Amino acid sequence: MAPWGKRLAGVRGVLLDISGVLYDSGAGGGTAIAGSVEAVARLKRSRLKVRFCTNESQKSRAELVGQLQRLGFDISEQEVTAPAPAACQILKEQGLRPYLLIHDGLRGTLSLSLFPGVRSEFDQIDTSNPNCVVIADAGESFSYQNMNNAFQVLMELEKPVLISLGKGRYYKETSGLMLDVGPYMKALEYACGIKAEVVGKPSPEFFKSALQAIGVEAHQAVMIGDDIVGDVGGAQRCGMRALQVRTGKFRPSDEHHPEVKADGYVDNLAEAVDLLLQHADK
Amino acid sequence: MAPWGKRLAGVRGVLLDISGVLYDSGAGGGTAIAGSVEAVARLKRSRLKVRFCTNESQKSRAELVGQLQRLGFDISEQEVTAPAPAACQILKEQGLRPYLLIHDGLRGTLSLSLFPGVRSEFDQIDTSNPNCVVIADAGESFSYQNMNNAFQVLMELEKPVLISLGKGRYYKETSGLMLDVGPYMKALEYACGIKAEVVGKPSPEFFKSALQAIGVEAHQAVMIGDDIVGDVGGAQRCGMRALQVRTGKFRPSDEHHPEVKADGYVDNLAEAVDLLLQHADK
Repeated sequence: MAPWGKRLAGVRGVLLDISGVLYDSGAGGGTAIAGSVEAVARLKRSRLKVRFCTNESQKSRAELVGQLQRLGFDISEQEVTAPAPAACQILKEQGLRPYLLIHDGLRGTLSLSLFPGVRSEFDQIDTSNPNCVVIADAGESFSYQNMNNAFQVLMELEKPVLISLGKGRYYKETSGLMLDVGPYMKALEYACGIKAEVVGKPSPEFFKSALQAIGVEAHQAVMIGDDIVGDVGGAQRCGMRALQVRTGKFRPSDEHHPEVKADGYVDNLAEAVDLLLQHADK
Repeated sequence: MAPWGKRLAGVRGVLLDISGVLYDSGAGGGTAIAGSVEAVARLKRSRLKVRFCTNESQKSRAELVGQLQRLGFDISEQEVTAPAPAACQILKEQGLRPYLLIHDGLRGTLSLSLFPGVRSEFDQIDTSNPNCVVIADAGESFSYQNMNNAFQVLMELEKPVLISLGKGRYYKETSGLMLDVGPYMKALEYACGIKAEVVGKPSPEFFKSALQAIGVEAHQAVMIGDDIVGDVGGAQRCGMRALQVRTGKFRPSDEHHPEVKADGYVDNLAEAVDLLLQHADK
């Protein structure tokens, strides 16, 4: 492989995945990945432009950012590109009224209005008499009943529209690997004989909107993520460079993936930032 | 299309799908499809050999047959080819200990021991320290937690083995269309990057074992089912003829399926039996 100086030459902007790069989600708000709080701070003090680019679709951006701030991260809602707002724009533009197969927010003794989950992102969306389905990382809300409701909505439509917020296979929580939205998207695709429209990584439109927000061209940008297909492969197909961190859902076999080869593999975000501050923008 | 006399010439044996052909399952044991009770009786009084060939994997054969008998059908356990017993044979032969992602039987006020569901078919199988996953039509037991358990078992294995009892997309209950095991099989395939082994229709071994049980060759047999792909396409690939009934999960678009063309479409089992008694075995 070429030396880092060559691989990172001319980088002006950095897209950062969140889950598995900044922190591992889980009970009690999850835990920061060692060195990541300082790495984000150093990156933001540098001349490099930074944008957070996540497929998080279980929490609203406000909740996600709040959780990260409590872990010590310097991050605001305005710096985050996430799929739910992008999906809302599509729904409004196309006059679509979704059945929402999404996470129902924190339940139990806490008030739903305090922790409404991703549902709050769809507050302004008409969900009466649905003419499409939006599927997100619904976690425990992926019950048979909810999946069957979504399936029945789709089968009643002449031209079924299924919008999926990302298509990740799984992610890592502090307690272990967890099924993401992708497997459930595939289930509905097979059941109905249709193809979903993916909003989020690895959709090129999604990466482009993140780059636009920081005014950086694809060839001047590097994506840092833990997902060899969604983060690394997706970014590269947009003309960006991409590094995979060996944290989060990373598995050793990723370094020998049959289709995707990262521009570099690093132990964690801290190492990636070391390398970027040393070699980028030269 | 050729006249029925030509299409049904030389038929000596009939394989009958159960759900959607004999009855629609649902609350209170489901309902017989009009004319089917008499049609089965007439078929069994004829010289044609009859075998029931089902992908039912939510109930045990004993429960299924009991339910059908209560609806008036002349059927015994020994006449039914079903995927759970076939899967048990594979598990024993290959020394596999499954995590069972299957229906948990009737719950609530009824004793589990009276209605144990398909789980009773696996009574003799060692499920400790699992080294594979068996997935069936689990219905409400397809919770996120159970799916994630199956996923985690597979991800821990060096060579993950997923055995699926059928791969149907959906079936029809009296209350509407319901997701079958196939979509959930696809979900785990995608999550783990693997391919499931399907036991049941449309697997050729499964059709062959049903034919063997009645001593009829494939070219002398006709399959009658409501599933254009699993029943009709599967049987035809084994060298059988196949009729689709316009009951159960049948949809008008099935008659213009891009890949599968039945040897005939009939309104229901009663019409199929009329035609068979008139034209077969000549």
